[in-house]
Amino acid sequence: MLMAELSRRSGVPVATIKYYLRESLLPAGVATSATRAEYGEAHLRRLRLIRALVDIGEVPVAALRKILAVVDDQDASVHKMLGTVEYQLGPRPAVADDDDPDWQAASQEVDDLIAEMGWTVTPFAPARTLLALTLAALRRLGSAPPGAGLRAYAEAMAALADTEVASLVRDPDSAPSPQLGAASVRPSEPGSRVALAESAVLGMVLYERVIVALRRLAQEDASARIFG
Amino acid sequence: MLMAELSRRSGVPVATIKYYLRESLLPAGVATSATRAEYGEAHLRRLRLIRALVDIGEVPVAALRKILAVVDDQDASVHKMLGTVEYQLGPRPAVADDDDPDWQAASQEVDDLIAEMGWTVTPFAPARTLLALTLAALRRLGSAPPGAGLRAYAEAMAALADTEVASLVRDPDSAPSPQLGAASVRPSEPGSRVALAESAVLGMVLYERVIVALRRLAQEDASARIFG
Repeated sequence: MLMAELSRRSGVPVATIKYYLRESLLPAGVATSATRAEYGEAHLRRLRLIRALVDIGEVPVAALRKILAVVDDQDASVHKMLGTVEYQLGPRPAVADDDDPDWQAASQEVDDLIAEMGWTVTPFAPARTLLALTLAALRRLGSAPPGAGLRAYAEAMAALADTEVASLVRDPDSAPSPQLGAASVRPSEPGSRVALAESAVLGMVLYERVIVALRRLAQEDASARIFG
Repeated sequence: MLMAELSRRSGVPVATIKYYLRESLLPAGVATSATRAEYGEAHLRRLRLIRALVDIGEVPVAALRKILAVVDDQDASVHKMLGTVEYQLGPRPAVADDDDPDWQAASQEVDDLIAEMGWTVTPFAPARTLLALTLAALRRLGSAPPGAGLRAYAEAMAALADTEVASLVRDPDSAPSPQLGAASVRPSEPGSRVALAESAVLGMVLYERVIVALRRLAQEDASARIFG
């Protein structure tokens, strides 16, 4: 398809597509003349992925570039790719003062929880810092985890994560995606690494929003029942 | 305490505190001379709340103003307050094209899920739109919910939300907070509405980060086990 159709089908303005091309976030089309290029379904899919990450995931362009680079890197393992996505996602609150007792206690709480859950997590995972800073802020305000505490949250997330990550192996056909520039590659073939990669990135980023939105809806309902 | 001590204990620069005072996000201290004012523990607590919402929750100032106004509004019910917080939180993706079949299908999916869960949610809850737009983006990319589907996520969030919202009633002492300008009010007295309100806002905003951080850690572990 030509640029105009790519724009129409993706809902992304031509100027924006050109920006993504210039920034190498979207691979170039196949030139058919000095001023025309042909784009395929893989370009459409990549554009939709970019828009989903930017519009819904609020992923900044610098992070997007690193995420897409690892999606397209045939030598990157799935574990490395998921790690890259995790490490690129925000928010990145300012790092705490190491002498702050609330920060020290919260960091210890995170280390203990990870050990208790038996999780394999690198020492420099940004989610550790995000969690510890959040728990430090809650401590500073005298707020204790409700009910069964942090452990209940960790167990709920572990159950969902296991299903999600395992589904990347079990259901490769659930997210059919031709490899960029090789439209005939079937998802179950090794060349469908891009399909798995795109699906993994999408799941990792967008399901955070799904979880947050569902939690807000569930809280509105709980509040209506208890306080309404 | 004087401004300098408030700044030292909260870790918030004096210029920022003055900005919050000018913007009426922080109530004025008690003037002790033409150029000095005295601040109390309630001011410190409010400053910490603001910083937690801004730094970790990434709540913009306009939303913060509306959230703090309802926290301080003695006539607002807890349900109204929680609703105000929910409705002020982002992200706010651009509204979809009503003719888009993916958006229509995703909206229907959200309505069906809410009905199936028996949730009481207003038709204009922004979390409905956030969820539907996210599901529409996933549909557009051919990505199906993994495993037990959306229902598993909804049930996990419902279980956590029930505990959280109920804890606002059951454990009023878990978050002691003197009312602004009335340091002697006990948390269990009606005047402690501000304590409940601050605690509720904090929980609603910060536990989203806790959940997101825990999910990323759980995913890193699942990925290490399955792909590492």
